[in-house]
Amino acid sequence: MSKSLTLRNFTNSPAVLMGVLLSFLEVKWLIEKKVEYKPLSVKTLLTSIKNISELTVDLAYSAVLFNDAELREEVLELEEYVDYLIYLLFMSASFAVRDKEDAERMAGIMKLAMAANRISDAAGDIASTIVRGEGLRILAHAFSKTEERIMRVVISKGSPLCNKRIDSLRGQLGVDVIVIRRRGRLLINPKESAKLIAGDAVIIRGTDKSVQEFKKIAEENVDEK
Amino acid sequence: MSKSLTLRNFTNSPAVLMGVLLSFLEVKWLIEKKVEYKPLSVKTLLTSIKNISELTVDLAYSAVLFNDAELREEVLELEEYVDYLIYLLFMSASFAVRDKEDAERMAGIMKLAMAANRISDAAGDIASTIVRGEGLRILAHAFSKTEERIMRVVISKGSPLCNKRIDSLRGQLGVDVIVIRRRGRLLINPKESAKLIAGDAVIIRGTDKSVQEFKKIAEENVDEK
Repeated sequence: MSKSLTLRNFTNSPAVLMGVLLSFLEVKWLIEKKVEYKPLSVKTLLTSIKNISELTVDLAYSAVLFNDAELREEVLELEEYVDYLIYLLFMSASFAVRDKEDAERMAGIMKLAMAANRISDAAGDIASTIVRGEGLRILAHAFSKTEERIMRVVISKGSPLCNKRIDSLRGQLGVDVIVIRRRGRLLINPKESAKLIAGDAVIIRGTDKSVQEFKKIAEENVDEK
Repeated sequence: MSKSLTLRNFTNSPAVLMGVLLSFLEVKWLIEKKVEYKPLSVKTLLTSIKNISELTVDLAYSAVLFNDAELREEVLELEEYVDYLIYLLFMSASFAVRDKEDAERMAGIMKLAMAANRISDAAGDIASTIVRGEGLRILAHAFSKTEERIMRVVISKGSPLCNKRIDSLRGQLGVDVIVIRRRGRLLINPKESAKLIAGDAVIIRGTDKSVQEFKKIAEENVDEK
């Protein structure tokens, strides 16, 4: 019996390798919250983690630049959501591991996901930075991309934007819808054919003028007139 | 005398505030290498740090996906370059600090720069990940953007690309030149009118076919024919 507990056998165990990985996760969040397991493929999870982590960087710089509290809140929520996806990825990856080769393969995927997680963590730090005065002028120069603006807007009931396709908005208002948050679900880079509905919180990208115009129409209530 | 050393006076000192900041820098590199100070504005430095850190993320995913050792090396060098810029930023910011208000303003800028630094560090971790087999297929799905490819190419002496303007390359070959490394200097997002010269190491972005074609022409030597 004692023979099977040598260090060599021990480290060859996929479960132990995964356990070692988990210890590197630093997902304090896991300990703090009860998390529900949802079966999603490793491929789907890794794609989401990558896309959301890249998105958070863009949103975070806009949140600072425009001192936008709603955008800041969105970044912090997305950052937490990435933590949750990392947890699901670890579960799905563990289930897929049958031998040492599988474990090594999954270790690469986990390493990437954790680096992507650190990117979204850094985005959270960026979003929660407050800069004022001269600092803001320096920032505006460093972080402005051809006067592009990102904004979070909620579509009100009775807004003319309800039932509008996303691609028609690009043509009419010059605005890209990059995220739709609908009843707690998150749609990143939604399909061209997706339609907006009342209550959607959307993140849009465009010139300052075009996003302001979008916001105005989103908050209009035609029914009340 | 002892009165002026109370904790309150102590933390009010801009130099001490900056010193506290530096302790958070985690730039091990500073200790390991002798660094030369170059006077650059806070604005210029912050812009570079932001741009390079975002660029490294893109390059890193490509390095993993195409198992491209040169691109991996480039990411690790850029990551180190960001550390150097952070050091210069700290120097320039310190010089600009005259009172507590200045220090608070600069603290925001430093916090942003350090978060951007963590992004490039994470990119370094991504670049140095090796993924094989099934893992690579999962990765290709997660990290491929509409078949876009990034590649590092050196322009050989006598290549037809010498003296070609960057914007003409986009038209002729469908390739964007995103970085030029010339005699140790780094040009990020070079001007449209910039011309390539022999010995330039360039990072290009385009379809797989177009970057391969660019590489072929870059390594051609017309003079030898």
